[in-house]
Amino acid sequence: MKQGRIGAIEGFTEGEVRRQASATLTIATPGQGFTDFTRSVVDFVRRSGLQDGLVSVFCRHTSASLTIQENADPDVQTDLMTALDGLAPRHAGDVHGAEGPGGSRKQTPYVHSAEGPDDMPGHIRTMLTDSSLSIPVVGGRLALGTWQGIYLIEHRDRPHRREIVLHVVGS
Amino acid sequence: MKQGRIGAIEGFTEGEVRRQASATLTIATPGQGFTDFTRSVVDFVRRSGLQDGLVSVFCRHTSASLTIQENADPDVQTDLMTALDGLAPRHAGDVHGAEGPGGSRKQTPYVHSAEGPDDMPGHIRTMLTDSSLSIPVVGGRLALGTWQGIYLIEHRDRPHRREIVLHVVGS
Amino acid sequence: MKQGRIGAIEGFTEGEVRRQASATLTIATPGQGFTDFTRSVVDFVRRSGLQDGLVSVFCRHTSASLTIQENADPDVQTDLMTALDGLAPRHAGDVHGAEGPGGSRKQTPYVHSAEGPDDMPGHIRTMLTDSSLSIPVVGGRLALGTWQGIYLIEHRDRPHRREIVLHVVGS
Repeated sequence: MKQGRIGAIEGFTEGEVRRQASATLTIATPGQGFTDFTRSVVDFVRRSGLQDGLVSVFCRHTSASLTIQENADPDVQTDLMTALDGLAPRHAGDVHGAEGPGGSRKQTPYVHSAEGPDDMPGHIRTMLTDSSLSIPVVGGRLALGTWQGIYLIEHRDRPHRREIVLHVVGS
Repeated sequence: MKQGRIGAIEGFTEGEVRRQASATLTIATPGQGFTDFTRSVVDFVRRSGLQDGLVSVFCRHTSASLTIQENADPDVQTDLMTALDGLAPRHAGDVHGAEGPGGSRKQTPYVHSAEGPDDMPGHIRTMLTDSSLSIPVVGGRLALGTWQGIYLIEHRDRPHRREIVLHVVGS
Repeated sequence: MKQGRIGAIEGFTEGEVRRQASATLTIATPGQGFTDFTRSVVDFVRRSGLQDGLVSVFCRHTSASLTIQENADPDVQTDLMTALDGLAPRHAGDVHGAEGPGGSRKQTPYVHSAEGPDDMPGHIRTMLTDSSLSIPVVGGRLALGTWQGIYLIEHRDRPHRREIVLHVVGS
């Protein structure tokens, strides 16, 4: 496999680190789906007054999680959800060689099923995505790329109140 | 896809950042499975004396990894392991249209197989989960949710000694 | 599931935190594949002069991402890419019970397909791997394990210029 060509380190800046700030954000989700809360993270960093540093985003749940994703075409979110549905479906998996009529397969349940059929897939999807993200702050701006947004992914069917904890350190 | 309703930034606090600490933790795993080491991270932060800041957890291996998961029902770990077994099985994949007798399929081996059939799946599972996690510390406590625990996932069959590096910055 | 045996916290060190630094790195990728840029992160930390702290690595893209992986056998990268191909294939999925002649299955397209058949799989692969990593710095060295390297994963077919933002805080 061909490696990429790695350029020089550019735009090196250094300075003191003096301050930190933290806050909480609550997102009321309408059930399964993506919520872009980039603006809240930007607002939090602005309020801290820090120009350079590192902002961290933490999701306090195990059936909701974080990702940094494309913010331009909402169809991307539809396809991401379809992908998660395929990777961590409502049922644990196909029972092999056990096709029913019409090509449908018999499916095994999860062991952990007391909290509903959408709970265990939510834990798996959380494990495959992120509970924590860290993003550099450079010159008062998040170092996100043009097409990057910060998303909460709700994995449960019903509405939930989800808490995000923000932290920034810098100067 | 309906977005969630994003609340205001709450509980904003700020202050100086002055101190950091680091340490190492070794976990002797009995083979494939999950180990909850939240208490060790809590102890580390307590020992640092820091009340507010950010703690980072780093796993120094490529066939063991980290996740933040449900700490209530141990069945969740069973299902998470079943999910990882399905996503990164012992063999690279089905050879398409090549069903053997009894519905069993022919499977392709991984190219990297010299270290045993559990090694390459371990690398894939590490890539899909986490090598590093960062959790805010607020008022002397980790900002974990009620049901969140910090887990090491051992992906190899045999017992291993796994090293975790902890770092906290704050005041 | 048997838990591991958790050892004591060892090598606890603490001190002031005073300085931070940041920089950008550009990697010209030749298309799909892995690029080990550990040395650039090491160089960045050395240039900062910081002996103890936390270095964070951030990828500014949604169809390229980061992972910490085995740096010894290049075959691992081949198998990791095969795994990603299987988890997020060029097409959204099999249409169930719809086998064509010769065992081939009919496949559904992604909704988001305007940017080419390699774009949406790239977003899914980015979601399953990492956009940000944080690694402790101890005694002037990254706390990476012996076999760990820091990799950029290019998910697109064509060459791209990918920007990585580095940040370190410590003393």
